[in-house]
Amino acid sequence: MAKRKFESKIRVQYHETDAMGIVHHSNYVRYFEAARTEMMRQCGYSYDEMEKAGVWMPVLSVNVSYKMPAVYDEILTLCCWVERLKGASIELGYEVRGADGRLCAAGNSSHGFTDKKLRPLRMKRQAPELYAFFKGLEKAEAE
Amino acid sequence: MAKRKFESKIRVQYHETDAMGIVHHSNYVRYFEAARTEMMRQCGYSYDEMEKAGVWMPVLSVNVSYKMPAVYDEILTLCCWVERLKGASIELGYEVRGADGRLCAAGNSSHGFTDKKLRPLRMKRQAPELYAFFKGLEKAEAE
Amino acid sequence: MAKRKFESKIRVQYHETDAMGIVHHSNYVRYFEAARTEMMRQCGYSYDEMEKAGVWMPVLSVNVSYKMPAVYDEILTLCCWVERLKGASIELGYEVRGADGRLCAAGNSSHGFTDKKLRPLRMKRQAPELYAFFKGLEKAEAE
Amino acid sequence: MAKRKFESKIRVQYHETDAMGIVHHSNYVRYFEAARTEMMRQCGYSYDEMEKAGVWMPVLSVNVSYKMPAVYDEILTLCCWVERLKGASIELGYEVRGADGRLCAAGNSSHGFTDKKLRPLRMKRQAPELYAFFKGLEKAEAE
Repeated sequence: MAKRKFESKIRVQYHETDAMGIVHHSNYVRYFEAARTEMMRQCGYSYDEMEKAGVWMPVLSVNVSYKMPAVYDEILTLCCWVERLKGASIELGYEVRGADGRLCAAGNSSHGFTDKKLRPLRMKRQAPELYAFFKGLEKAEAE
Repeated sequence: MAKRKFESKIRVQYHETDAMGIVHHSNYVRYFEAARTEMMRQCGYSYDEMEKAGVWMPVLSVNVSYKMPAVYDEILTLCCWVERLKGASIELGYEVRGADGRLCAAGNSSHGFTDKKLRPLRMKRQAPELYAFFKGLEKAEAE
Repeated sequence: MAKRKFESKIRVQYHETDAMGIVHHSNYVRYFEAARTEMMRQCGYSYDEMEKAGVWMPVLSVNVSYKMPAVYDEILTLCCWVERLKGASIELGYEVRGADGRLCAAGNSSHGFTDKKLRPLRMKRQAPELYAFFKGLEKAEAE
Repeated sequence: MAKRKFESKIRVQYHETDAMGIVHHSNYVRYFEAARTEMMRQCGYSYDEMEKAGVWMPVLSVNVSYKMPAVYDEILTLCCWVERLKGASIELGYEVRGADGRLCAAGNSSHGFTDKKLRPLRMKRQAPELYAFFKGLEKAEAE
């Protein structure tokens, strides 16, 4: 079964464009962050709550493939899903689509789970509820 | 006597431009911040040190007048000076000049002096050295 | 009669916060831009359409007063209204409010109307429909 | 022989930090861009000149591995080198090092060569001088 891709929308701001007249490539890393934040919120546990509960998800790596430019004022569809949950880290997948459905960018990121001082957490034992939450996302299937 | 204007340089980055092909206006507020940071460093007391000594300078207001566009890769000259030091706040002036000396933007900002919890500090009494430092800047005259 | 304030919402992104744990002050200039863009869209004429019709609204000045910090993930209410429409320029007012209604920042901006080469346009004669559009916004009253 | 890594410096600005008190991960993509721009400039051909000569280098992909956080006001060393030059594209490598030499991030990017309308250029034939320029960078060895 295919993974369920959680969707959210964002509108391109003027300051996100560059002198080529398109969205500057660095902003996709920020769109990915918005995408994973909104996925978590939709599924009932916000990133903000998680931080307040003492769990941080620092980015270990991010990879972006640029396919087609996006332009000012366009409403983008951000897609995010859990590729894989491990004991102390997680891998996420992303797509950013334009208003007409074309693929603008695709990519992935991996994150550790840590406390505020960036010390690794063993999720299963130290944050079992949150582990179950992400396990649920990992297993979510497209309808 | 005219105020001494403390100068620093910055190069316009691609992501700071927008679809008009010029520096996005919001970035001048960031240039002003760089300008005041570099003024302090040149005069022997970095903003970073100040924060580590427990004094913060939250922005109370900022005003920018845009004169001429700046473009990608241009080396800008940032000028900053102390307009006025008060007991618990400070007013700064700014100019941003292009590579050819033209005035791109001018403006000012005012800042409170606070502790980390944003409670006001009476500078003369609670941070006399820092007060003297800014008093020196306020009195600095152009040669 | 009081002016009608056109409202839109925006959620604070992680990259907009700074090491003080609050929204970096430069981002309010970007929120103001989102506020005026959304005001125009709500009233039936998007900034994007306007640019495509050959009219640009470069920023001449922007002034921000910071009142209370905003924090990560907070939904902000952006308010914008037309203070005054002149023959070749416009003045806008702004408020940014936190999730609890507190005033985080207030300010204003002024803009020229120009063609793509930044040459001033006499709006009444050269863009009468757009002039009428902004005149309508200027006269809009709170209910 | 090891590749020569071209170095430049950048100072972390306050607005680049986030609520974790460190540089927001998205900014490394911007540091990479500064790194490749400065490499080109050091070697005698600026990115700006290249665009003015009608050649663009849109980003096809970017990959970042985050190793250690960087903090406000830190002077970072940006390293860039040409991994491989192909007929119509190029692969670059990067390192970002902290003031104490620690590796903060490493990564790579690939770019196409295109005209302003983003149509691919066959570099050897259509821009032989620029091709030779990048060939020289690709062959540069550490001393």
